[in-house]
Amino acid sequence: MAQLTSRIKEAREASLVLAALDTGTKNNALKAMAAALDGNRERILEANRKDVSAAEEMSRRGEMPASLVKRLKVDDEKISGMVAGIEDVTRLEDPVGETMSALKLDEGLTLYQVKCPIGMLGVIFESRPDVVPQILSLCLKSGNGVAFKGGSEASNSNRVLFDVLTEAAYSAGVPRGAFVLMETREDIGAILGMHGDIDLLIPRGSNEFVRYIQENTRIPVLGHSAGICHVYVDDEADMDIALAVTLDSKVQYPAVCNAAETLLVNSKIAGGFLPMMAKLFKESGVEMRVDARAKAFVPKDVAIVDAKDEDWDAEYNDMVISIAVVDSLDEAIGFINRHGSHHTDAIVTRDGGRQSEFVRRVDSADVFVNASTRFSDGFRYGKGAEVGISTNKVHSRGPVGMEGLMIYKYVLIGNGQVVKDYVGKDAKRFLHQRTDERYGG
Amino acid sequence: MAQLTSRIKEAREASLVLAALDTGTKNNALKAMAAALDGNRERILEANRKDVSAAEEMSRRGEMPASLVKRLKVDDEKISGMVAGIEDVTRLEDPVGETMSALKLDEGLTLYQVKCPIGMLGVIFESRPDVVPQILSLCLKSGNGVAFKGGSEASNSNRVLFDVLTEAAYSAGVPRGAFVLMETREDIGAILGMHGDIDLLIPRGSNEFVRYIQENTRIPVLGHSAGICHVYVDDEADMDIALAVTLDSKVQYPAVCNAAETLLVNSKIAGGFLPMMAKLFKESGVEMRVDARAKAFVPKDVAIVDAKDEDWDAEYNDMVISIAVVDSLDEAIGFINRHGSHHTDAIVTRDGGRQSEFVRRVDSADVFVNASTRFSDGFRYGKGAEVGISTNKVHSRGPVGMEGLMIYKYVLIGNGQVVKDYVGKDAKRFLHQRTDERYGG
Repeated sequence: MAQLTSRIKEAREASLVLAALDTGTKNNALKAMAAALDGNRERILEANRKDVSAAEEMSRRGEMPASLVKRLKVDDEKISGMVAGIEDVTRLEDPVGETMSALKLDEGLTLYQVKCPIGMLGVIFESRPDVVPQILSLCLKSGNGVAFKGGSEASNSNRVLFDVLTEAAYSAGVPRGAFVLMETREDIGAILGMHGDIDLLIPRGSNEFVRYIQENTRIPVLGHSAGICHVYVDDEADMDIALAVTLDSKVQYPAVCNAAETLLVNSKIAGGFLPMMAKLFKESGVEMRVDARAKAFVPKDVAIVDAKDEDWDAEYNDMVISIAVVDSLDEAIGFINRHGSHHTDAIVTRDGGRQSEFVRRVDSADVFVNASTRFSDGFRYGKGAEVGISTNKVHSRGPVGMEGLMIYKYVLIGNGQVVKDYVGKDAKRFLHQRTDERYGG
Repeated sequence: MAQLTSRIKEAREASLVLAALDTGTKNNALKAMAAALDGNRERILEANRKDVSAAEEMSRRGEMPASLVKRLKVDDEKISGMVAGIEDVTRLEDPVGETMSALKLDEGLTLYQVKCPIGMLGVIFESRPDVVPQILSLCLKSGNGVAFKGGSEASNSNRVLFDVLTEAAYSAGVPRGAFVLMETREDIGAILGMHGDIDLLIPRGSNEFVRYIQENTRIPVLGHSAGICHVYVDDEADMDIALAVTLDSKVQYPAVCNAAETLLVNSKIAGGFLPMMAKLFKESGVEMRVDARAKAFVPKDVAIVDAKDEDWDAEYNDMVISIAVVDSLDEAIGFINRHGSHHTDAIVTRDGGRQSEFVRRVDSADVFVNASTRFSDGFRYGKGAEVGISTNKVHSRGPVGMEGLMIYKYVLIGNGQVVKDYVGKDAKRFLHQRTDERYGG
């Protein structure tokens, strides 16, 4: 543990050098990493076979779902996918050094707001080996050091991938030690106390896992612990759109955080909409948990369940949906802000005024009009790479790409100016002129 | 306490309505607040007289410095200043609803990143009554609810200012209850546990106070607990600039966080620079705490103190400076990153390469070239109003204005699009075209 702590402190030092690397060096390192993956296929596959056979053994004993074993498996095609992923990151524009704004304070005194890496990240993903090259390449391109922990069931694969990639990067000029692999649960416990050394934690995994991280560290945490998304069907909704958007939001991939868990229907159209929607849900095998008012509109031949209070705060991640009838847009907005997880919520309506009221008042990272909640995703948002989805109210919100790994510094370039000249009698006045000048240093 | 908690929960509800208020209503409310201040001068002065006479009593007993009594005092001119401050905020552009970026995902499916308030703030300022109108007007204009606590010695003044201002705002259409005044230390303890209800805490006061807040809450905290700023005089420095910038950084106003605490001098020019600098410091009454190498360059007639280890990590906020000699830019950068508080650090050099290396590698919110550290300030940065100075690595860094009270939401406007059509065989492809369109809702 002491060793992990000191490796992370070294990584923090190295990250300060990494932050200042030029784009060419970083891209060359990324190319070296892609080539190293390509050139070490047998070594990677061999390590992965160990993980997979251990997982298969667990699966036979009923200790691991078959789907997890499948996701764990790396083959030649997956390695090629990892190589392509690194090449994608290589092509992303280097955000470091970008001038976000510039202000002429006075003649010869210009203030630049310049984008820079956050510094040292802690990334904890309970997941498949593909994530190792993805995280390392993103951190390198954005100039951040990282302490990374992947899923324990992939530990052999993760170790080899990490070694192959970091050796290539270090040989190409990346400061040695900027990337740290964590391998045990105890490692996670240790880094939670390292505020001051780690600037941002990015956990991905079960809701319980993310909540545990959030509740046990003073380091800022980027992410979300729940995805309770709503679709509200307004009385001015187009019926075809309402049916299609609601169905897609629920059934297109119910296991994920941006799938809908609750459907709210305006009472004025519940009689027209709910019977059709209930039939579609029935055909798709969706269990409906309905309040008393919604129940009245479901055809007798469709099986339903009476919703309990806890259903309005439940994230099913499954083919289950809770349904309530509301009397107004105002009631729907209040319901969503109270029961939702501030992730993604959609309204279906043709009325422009209600669209914008919903958008302005729903307190969620992603607020959609006449579109499926399932669009809430870094790839669909065109981010190139997704770091996670945030329900935080500061820094980054919604799907987060490389931009979420960046902050800025203020750079003031003068030629000897002192504050004394700008105060008191005969004080010089500030110009405060916006300028398009870029910081060139 | 239970009452405070429920008032803050009500304020959070009200803040969701406040977030959606149009600019006209907000500006009218601000005008009403300014008029109410102007029309209630006698009531404000009377309340302030109570605070001042209690403070004078404490001052006579030696329990309060006279400077604090002076800062507490409100007179007609100060009220006019408060009115002018609200008028300044009224003129600031409304940031809510601004489109930060827009991306056409497909025909008829556009994603907007739209600026919005963070939500519910907790602002704890150990300070003078002037801050009440400043914070309330900033929160109103930015659409945020706030629970505010001012200095206890100003409690009568704060209460009257708060009542006058909020009554005016509520009468002009601001949702009643969006602003809460906290009055006791116990109130602060209570809100520290209200993550989920309060989105961001902004404490200002002593280092100990800010650190206490940071260490006792899971709510994100914006601010800084220390200001250990450096000036590094490189061997390529212009001597006049080095003398002027170093002197101003230390003596122009030593009590504040952006004053320099440590001077680093390159050994190649220490023999030329330090004797002159030491004379200037002596003339200004600055105590010098020097390392062994610096000591050798200080003229015999200038009194100095041997620096102890703890001097390199000390924030004096006084007419004291620690001085060390270093052999290279690299050593200076390492020293600053190790001992500084990531606030504001300056280099004096004519060499462009060293300027940019310093800027890129010093891990501070504000990195200056040939200018005094004292420029690090919201007013000087042209922000109109300053919320605080942040040494955080996420969200906001350096002097923070109203922009630090904002976050964004993603608004997706479609006409019935579903994710099912964008996956699998024959999947529709995303366009991901940047567009200049603004969200108009």
